[in-house]
Amino acid sequence: MDYQEWVRAELKRMSDAAGFCYTPAGEIETRLSRLRAAMAEKETEAVLVVEKMDLYYFSGTAQDGVLYIPLEGPPLLMIRRETERARIESPIHAVTEIASLREIPGRVRDMGGGLPRNMGLELDVLPVKVYRRYGALFPGTRLLDAAPLIRGIRRIKSAFEIRLMKRAGKIGEEVFLRAREVLREGMTEIELGGLMEAWAKRLGHEGLLRIRSLNYEAYSWHILAGPCGGIVSQSDSPMGGLGLSPAFPVGAGHNLLKARAPILVDFGICYHGYQADETRMFSIGEMEPKFRDAYRACRRIHDAILAEARPGADCEVLFDMGTALAEEMGYRDNYLGPPGLQTRFVGHGVGLELNEFPFIARGHAYPLEAGMTFALEPKMVFPGEGAVGIENTVVVTEDGCEILTPAAAEIFTVSR
Amino acid sequence: MDYQEWVRAELKRMSDAAGFCYTPAGEIETRLSRLRAAMAEKETEAVLVVEKMDLYYFSGTAQDGVLYIPLEGPPLLMIRRETERARIESPIHAVTEIASLREIPGRVRDMGGGLPRNMGLELDVLPVKVYRRYGALFPGTRLLDAAPLIRGIRRIKSAFEIRLMKRAGKIGEEVFLRAREVLREGMTEIELGGLMEAWAKRLGHEGLLRIRSLNYEAYSWHILAGPCGGIVSQSDSPMGGLGLSPAFPVGAGHNLLKARAPILVDFGICYHGYQADETRMFSIGEMEPKFRDAYRACRRIHDAILAEARPGADCEVLFDMGTALAEEMGYRDNYLGPPGLQTRFVGHGVGLELNEFPFIARGHAYPLEAGMTFALEPKMVFPGEGAVGIENTVVVTEDGCEILTPAAAEIFTVSR
Repeated sequence: MDYQEWVRAELKRMSDAAGFCYTPAGEIETRLSRLRAAMAEKETEAVLVVEKMDLYYFSGTAQDGVLYIPLEGPPLLMIRRETERARIESPIHAVTEIASLREIPGRVRDMGGGLPRNMGLELDVLPVKVYRRYGALFPGTRLLDAAPLIRGIRRIKSAFEIRLMKRAGKIGEEVFLRAREVLREGMTEIELGGLMEAWAKRLGHEGLLRIRSLNYEAYSWHILAGPCGGIVSQSDSPMGGLGLSPAFPVGAGHNLLKARAPILVDFGICYHGYQADETRMFSIGEMEPKFRDAYRACRRIHDAILAEARPGADCEVLFDMGTALAEEMGYRDNYLGPPGLQTRFVGHGVGLELNEFPFIARGHAYPLEAGMTFALEPKMVFPGEGAVGIENTVVVTEDGCEILTPAAAEIFTVSR
Repeated sequence: MDYQEWVRAELKRMSDAAGFCYTPAGEIETRLSRLRAAMAEKETEAVLVVEKMDLYYFSGTAQDGVLYIPLEGPPLLMIRRETERARIESPIHAVTEIASLREIPGRVRDMGGGLPRNMGLELDVLPVKVYRRYGALFPGTRLLDAAPLIRGIRRIKSAFEIRLMKRAGKIGEEVFLRAREVLREGMTEIELGGLMEAWAKRLGHEGLLRIRSLNYEAYSWHILAGPCGGIVSQSDSPMGGLGLSPAFPVGAGHNLLKARAPILVDFGICYHGYQADETRMFSIGEMEPKFRDAYRACRRIHDAILAEARPGADCEVLFDMGTALAEEMGYRDNYLGPPGLQTRFVGHGVGLELNEFPFIARGHAYPLEAGMTFALEPKMVFPGEGAVGIENTVVVTEDGCEILTPAAAEIFTVSR
């Protein structure tokens, strides 16, 4: 059977049957016109989108390729693999197959406008070697950094994106309920993590979480029990956990879940690329009072920040409010990590990546805007003992914010 | 409790109890001296290792930091987070804490040798923005590409590394046996994938697979049943599968496992950073003869290539041998993908990353060497119907090669 024929006849039907949502054409048009407005302001003649999640955002497909967006005229999607599939997934009309990056300048010229005098690329992630290759392919073109424009646009989510994030949050709720069913004393952190993941994937969780970084890696199984909750590691997080080895020294490990000690479950879900980040506490038998109190303090900080979170609220002011409240309640040495290792953020933008704007953080003095989505995660660390916290992903609305992660904000307690 | 004190007193003990293997000092010394020999040859005065797996390879830690390696004199490990842990994990003597990259030149100067006239960085992965930052921090230093040196050294594995890969292979064997126990008709691909992963993690699989690339993402759950085995996608692989959405259009999806159709399970395991890549076929009831025959053809190609794989054997010649054999057996239009979309490799180096040297591939005319490890994966694709194949990870020995993935090379058949 001819592959292309088969794909054209069957793939859309199979994808529909599997519940695929495609990015609507109107959605792509809006995103492109917002990018073009930003390009015009920065006198950028073209943007070449190379990073996979940016490509998915502006084209609807995550196939292997690049998207050329001139300031004026239609965009051109150039795909290395697999073109037929990109045509099904993307509402962009001009889709062309390329065997190599070498063919890009020719395809751009074929559009009639010649090569641009300047062109933006995502220099925050593009490797030097690939950048130099583009430099040689576009010799008369000045290469600019398009990452600030792209990240700036991606910070405001559409109703379509928020719907996908809500679906992720709903999967999370089911996974947390499931965790309570399977959790038992003597299980390891990673065993619980594996079972939660298996359940999450059945429900549509894509397995990988994504973060825009060379070296940071995101993962769902950040499950830290008892003393492991008090271990800081490579990640910019209040607690890293022991992990499974020096090569992966974060997240769940072979540590046993024990009664009464806090079990922190920070479990991200990814649905159609959109992530919901969420933390709940678990306990086998009643959790020790010290940790219950600290958890309540986290909830109080969480609620206080969300009560002020609305368009116009300053992100640094929100961060400082949380810190002041933690100090007032006596948790200065526990809030967001042990002394000297405390993180300087309590919230991070979430969407296709886990480090989007805004950051509810020191040094981030800018206002919240309607459509921003972020995960808010006040946490307390007790070295040698454990960690507690809560985390929800929220969207900023016209006059406040709405939680996208509906799991009950309680300590999930199972009997011994 | 003071965090640093607690870490110094407890973390090593906890890690030992959890079965952590640390990279021995002698191992690090050998790796560094091999790098220095390559640096001397290329007149490179220093290398600054920035990528996480390169850092783990040359220092034993994957904490957030960089390793400065001068051509002469001891290396300096500079850690942003978490320094106490890096001290436990790394045999390197000089470990210093930095708050920001800005402090790097000062720390290098403190070593007494001044700043180098040239310095290698991994330009194949280093983002332009970070590269420019280093350029500003080392204004009189010419920045070179150290990736070819580093990848060249990493291509030959030590006995220590091979032991870790064998452990990964052993976990894989148990996971494949477990898969046969849980597999049943009507399950989805992703459900099986989730259960296999959960089992693998209990046994030490670290969850993430790693590939050296901006846009390629590696994952364990490449489980493709029936027609999904015939779908090509973004990945440079004979078959991509349907995946879970346009944002993750590869690997296992919600497709149901059906009797008699081929179920291809390509499942990578990562143990202490070291990967074993492996494919086995599953079937519910007897697999249809057409696919059984194609599977036997894959095994024949696999065995023929391995029979010739020894130090000195040319990788391109091995690749061509596989292609000729596939054509001779009548599989020209199925081997390594559908016509026009066939991949040009049948094997890829495996270690800390899934795209290491060597590649058993078109255009890779270089000899195998003892200590190289690669995954060999002849596969056949039938659009609209399915895919079959076999894959083992092997190490090249002094006079042949040895399979590191011991799962039985059979079709794992369960009754209906």
